[in-house]
Formats: sequence, structure tokens, C-alpha cells
Amino acid sequence: MTLEEIGSKAKEAETRLRTMETVKKNEVLKNAAKNLIAGCDEILAANTIDMEHGREKGMSPGLLDRLLLTKQRICAMAEGICQVADLEDPIGEVLEMKKRPNGLLIGRKRVPLGVVGMIYEARPNVTADAFALCFKTGNAVILKGGSDAICSNKAIVDSIRKTLREAEVPEDAIILIADTRRETTEQFMKLNRYVDVLIPRGGAGLIRSVVENSTIPVIETGTGNCHIYVDETADLTMAVNIILNAKTQRVGVCNACESIVVHEKVREQLLPVLAERLEQKNVEMRADSQAKAYMPGAVDACEQDWGTEYLDYIVSIKTVSSVDEAIAHINRYNTGHSEAIITNDYSHAQKFLDEIDAAAVYVNASTRFTDGYEFGYGAEIGISTQKLHARGPMGLLALTTTKFIIYGSGQIRP
Amino acid sequence: MTLEEIGSKAKEAETRLRTMETVKKNEVLKNAAKNLIAGCDEILAANTIDMEHGREKGMSPGLLDRLLLTKQRICAMAEGICQVADLEDPIGEVLEMKKRPNGLLIGRKRVPLGVVGMIYEARPNVTADAFALCFKTGNAVILKGGSDAICSNKAIVDSIRKTLREAEVPEDAIILIADTRRETTEQFMKLNRYVDVLIPRGGAGLIRSVVENSTIPVIETGTGNCHIYVDETADLTMAVNIILNAKTQRVGVCNACESIVVHEKVREQLLPVLAERLEQKNVEMRADSQAKAYMPGAVDACEQDWGTEYLDYIVSIKTVSSVDEAIAHINRYNTGHSEAIITNDYSHAQKFLDEIDAAAVYVNASTRFTDGYEFGYGAEIGISTQKLHARGPMGLLALTTTKFIIYGSGQIRP
Repeated sequence: MTLEEIGSKAKEAETRLRTMETVKKNEVLKNAAKNLIAGCDEILAANTIDMEHGREKGMSPGLLDRLLLTKQRICAMAEGICQVADLEDPIGEVLEMKKRPNGLLIGRKRVPLGVVGMIYEARPNVTADAFALCFKTGNAVILKGGSDAICSNKAIVDSIRKTLREAEVPEDAIILIADTRRETTEQFMKLNRYVDVLIPRGGAGLIRSVVENSTIPVIETGTGNCHIYVDETADLTMAVNIILNAKTQRVGVCNACESIVVHEKVREQLLPVLAERLEQKNVEMRADSQAKAYMPGAVDACEQDWGTEYLDYIVSIKTVSSVDEAIAHINRYNTGHSEAIITNDYSHAQKFLDEIDAAAVYVNASTRFTDGYEFGYGAEIGISTQKLHARGPMGLLALTTTKFIIYGSGQIRP
Repeated sequence: MTLEEIGSKAKEAETRLRTMETVKKNEVLKNAAKNLIAGCDEILAANTIDMEHGREKGMSPGLLDRLLLTKQRICAMAEGICQVADLEDPIGEVLEMKKRPNGLLIGRKRVPLGVVGMIYEARPNVTADAFALCFKTGNAVILKGGSDAICSNKAIVDSIRKTLREAEVPEDAIILIADTRRETTEQFMKLNRYVDVLIPRGGAGLIRSVVENSTIPVIETGTGNCHIYVDETADLTMAVNIILNAKTQRVGVCNACESIVVHEKVREQLLPVLAERLEQKNVEMRADSQAKAYMPGAVDACEQDWGTEYLDYIVSIKTVSSVDEAIAHINRYNTGHSEAIITNDYSHAQKFLDEIDAAAVYVNASTRFTDGYEFGYGAEIGISTQKLHARGPMGLLALTTTKFIIYGSGQIRP
């Protein structure tokens, strides 16, 4: 199939999905979950081929682990689909309806976006996730996964399409672009005529490439250069606990802490303790000269460190002399993801919440909470770091738009 | 100033605007309005230069009229700014705040987008409008107007910046890009680092160019190939009145009707009457063969007509044999703007509302109502025909985003 055909088929499927009843959608999702488990062996066999190619190519153990499917992981995938089936369907809700002076009744109704494009890298579980979230919200989805996972992705998509056929639902509600060449990806990013939104999920390079090349509206997800600022009045035990959690509970994620900003007045008391605890967790510390003096084992930070999302056991430490300096530093280097202040000063807390420009701003809590489940959305399609349409953890609502519906009785404009 | 400097200055100004009190913003807006009227002579002198260049270039009377400023038009501009001052300030509202099981208090707060870029054509009044809406919502605005209006735009921006200086507010809250070369516009569209959203206002060519070239998120506005479908059970008198209104009340606007879709069962009764009324208003009729037989004076429509936004005294007429065929036709050719059905059939009305994919879908009313004022928003920055972020008439809310604010007491993620 050409991209043009893929786009056109997805659009056609979307027309049917747009008005599908919630009970039908939920039934299909539960059957898709069941069939993934039933067809487990075929998916595992396909995954074995991807894994062999990966090993031949010399993929890192971390990437191989992301690529690997097991029976347990397929069950988790199926479980994820069932969880989405259990969520409330946002489609069709009328958000507000008002009567205008001329008698027109104007409402705003929540509707699907239409066709969602997703470009992602090695994890095959994104395939099932993306389908569940898009299908629940009445969207068709076109998937462009990485070449490393192509056999696994094909097997998962085949299983889901079989479920759709059996339910007499358009199977083009999910289409995988089988051609993994770079040129195809670039053409896909220009398929405005059919695709309503493009969501890249992956590393900074992938996301930048999509933002620069796509003519389809993009929702940027992901990169997080997150800071924790320890204010002069902070409870220092709380500060150490929160920093340790945000830095080391899981290092490879976008809401992990990458930089610590410290008020000079707490430097002496905080940093030696913090350094010891970070060292116990094998975290490399890159500090400015003022902080380094109090942190045994730290090395010098350079300018580049302030702007780096390490995704690793590394953290930078910056000293400031006021909350204003901390805010200015964070607003200069952050990626608009998650930022925290540890303080007991009321006005500093409010100031930080007001002036920091990020999707999630915390007082006295770990940045690791920026997550769809933790925020109570029950499912997540990514974390938006842009300001348009959706900001922060994106649940089902991010895959919807609204349209105005207007009930008249012959009104014309004077 | 280079574009880089312009971006950086706007970003700096935005930091101050973000937390500015509503009373201060309103005071500045009212003073800006006052100063535009007080400095009227200078603006008119600048406009005279633009008008002379326009005449020399052989601009059409229509375009010259768009470019022309008069004392009355400047007063209307000032009046527009005062109206925005009187609107409620959406910034700072916390949309929802909930307590999570772990005690975190998570709220979603409405905040400015940051820096808004606007690219527009000949009308100098957009300059003042855009400033008022952006400033009220705490955004800085970078304006790139057309070269034809450059002297007028400069004079208006100078007047507003003077007001800002007098109020001790960063004057870079509004910056006009004085360099009107095409290369500069193209570079401006890639200024992601500083500009949060780009809004093009103008003809289809301008909008397409921005969508294709911008790496900044874009809100598409404008083009409207709007249809009115007359169903078999329509009140035909109502149908004629609505069509006449939607086609001829103002022809050059995006919510005007460009195509009439008629059920074959009402063809014989409706079309001769309609043809007579349209002819009285000098509307050229381009009809398919079935319709043409009943419309004296009509010419043959060709395929291209179905997809054309005339913005003129021209209308196309298409015959269908069912509401489903009407919906399929409209969904194929419309631009996602405004669509109407005239019917007395309950299920057809609901079907049309459900299945038509457009920003505004009407039953028994003129498409001309798709407008910020008519929908009760009090001001409008354009009509979005895309699905992301804002759809339909955009008021102040379209210039805002949200951020999560989280109040903790030491929570860490288990």
C-alpha cells in the first residue's frame, strides 16, 4: 500500500469509528486483549526474529530489553488494553450548551480527532497501547514503528486487525506502515490531507526530526531536564529524600531529576549529606565551584551540564543566592516538563508556582509523579512538553477535539 | 534587530507579563486606545504613504479599501481595544484541583501561551487587535504584517510601545518585524526557541505557506468552503431565506455559503424560486445537470467547483438522493469550517450533526453565525479550521494554555 492509500483507508475507517457506540468499542478492546494472549506464540516467534537481528546488529542490552517480549509482557499489554476499555468514554459529551439572544442553541461537543499518526522507536508495547487509546476515542491510528521491532509490530497489528474483522469493524482502524525506510517516514510526516495529528514517542533526536519536518500538527512529548530547587527555608531531610527519589527511583525516564539547584544558605548543611547519599547510589555529581567545595567526590560542571537530560546516574548541582535566581536559571535551561521547589516559605512557594514555565510545577514533592496514572487519568499516551492542545500527561482527552453543534429555527444574520 | 534578538526580547517581556495583575493590564489597554486616537494624525500620515505606494503598484480597489485608515477606523480600532479590556481575564483561573490518595493536591491553572507570532496581510487593524488579545492574556506578540501596510503598522506599533513605556511595562510586549522580505518571514517561521505559537491570518496561499514551512506549532485559520444542504423535509421558505443570507449578506468572508446541496425530491419546488432570488442578487449559479434543469440562468458546474471557496457572488449547486450522499459529499469537499442542514426530520438532523466533520455544524440556521461575537466570546482572534488546541471561533482562551500546579508535603514515588 502507498502512503496515500494508507491515509485514505484510515480516513474511511475513522468515519465509521466516529459514531461507534461505547459498548461496541469496549467489546472490541476486550476481544483484542484476549486474542493477543491467545496468539501469544505467533507474536513471540516474530519477536524472536527481531531479537536475533538486534543481537546481530550489536544492540545494547538496554535496547534489547526494551525490544524483548515475553508471555508476561504480552499479558501486561492485554491488561493495559482492558484498562482502557474500563475508562469512561469521553466522546459525545456536550461540554456546554447555551442559548443565544437570537434563540440559537450553541453547544460544544467532544469528538474524535480523526486519524492519529504515531512515530515511535523500539518498544513493541506502544503498538497495543496506541491502538487502545485511539480506538477508545474513535480515532483511526497509523503506526510507524522502528525497523528493529518490525516483525513484532506486524504480529501485534495482525492480531488486532483480525479481532476487528471478526467484530465487523473496519480493520483499517489500525494500520502499520510496513516500509521502514527513512524516506517513507519523511513522506508520512507530510500526509496532512489524511492525518490530523502526529505524535512522536522516543528520544530527543526523533522528536526534533518530527517537529522540523512534519507539516501535520505535532504533539511534542518527552524530554525532561527536570530541576529540584532547595530553598533557604527547606526541610533538609525532606529535600534529601525527594532528590534521591526523583534522581534514582528510575533514571531513564523523562520526569527524573537531572539538576539540583541549591540556595547558598543551605549549602553547607545540605550538600555533604546529599553527596553521601548520592554516592551510595553511584550517582555522578557535576557541581559548580561553590557546591563542589561541600560535596566530596563531585567533579566540575561545565555550561553544557545545565542543559543536559542525562537519563543516567548523573546529576548537576548549581548554587544560587535567591529564589529569583533559581527561577531564572530553571526557566533558562528547563525543557518545560517538571520542576520542584522544596521550601517552607509561603511566598517563595507561590512565586515558584507562578513564574516557572513548565507543564508541572511542584512544591515539596518528587518530580517523578508527572504521569498519567499518578495524576489520575488512568492511561497515558505520553507527556506533552508543548503548550498547544495538551500540556503534561496526556490521557484520552488529548485524543479528542470539540465541534460546535448549533440548533436553529430559521435564524439568519442581520 | 535580528530575529534572534526580537525573539529573545519578546520572551523576556513575556516573563513580566505572565504575572501582571488584571487591573494593570486593563489600564494599559485603555491608555493604548486613548493614545491611538490622540496620535491619529501621525498614523493617518503613515497610512497615506502606504496608500500612495498601493496606488502606484496598481492595487485593486478592494485591497486599497482594506489598507485605508480613516479617523473613524482608528476610533473603531481603539474601541476594539477597550472592549478587550472589558472582557474577563482568563489567566490564573484554576480549572480543577483534586486531592490524590497520597495527599498530593493537583490543580490545573490557566496561563499564557508565552510568545505569539502573527503573520498577516494588508489590514492594519489586525495590528491593534492582535496586541489587545495577546496583552490581555499575558502574551507577548511578534507581528509580521504585509509590506503594503508597513508604514501604517509601524505607526500603530510605535504608539502602543509608547503607551507601554509610559506605564513602565516592557515595550517588547509588542514587536513588529520591520523587515518585510520573504526570507525573513521564512526564518521567522522557524523561531521555535522563542515563539510558542504562530497564527497566520490571510488568504489560502499565506496559510498554506505557513503550514508547510513553520516548525512552530500553527493554528490554521480561515478558509471556509461552507455548504447548505436542503433535505427532503425542509421548510423551503426557510431554506431560501437561509441560503440567501449565508451567500449574500457578506460574500468575502469565510463563513459565507459557497455550495448548495439539494435533495432531489425538493429540487423541482425549491430551485426555480431560489434561482430567481439568487439572480436578483446577481449571484452566478454553477449547477450539476440535474439542478441546472430547474435553474434558469445557471451554468454547468465542473469538478473544481465543488472544492472552491469563491468569496464572491458565485455559488455551486449539487443534487443528491439522500442525506447520506449529502454528508459524504460535504465531508469530501469541505474545509472543516461551517456546514448546515435545513430539515424537519429529527433523525436526519442528528445524523448531520454527528457525522459532518467541521468546526461548526448547524441545523436550520445560517452559516454566517460562526463568529466570536455571535457565539458570545466578545472578541475573536480568528476561526480555527484545525482540530488541535482550538476549533471554531477563537476568543481569549485560545491564547492560553494550562500548567499543573502540585502542592505536596514531602511525597516521593514508591
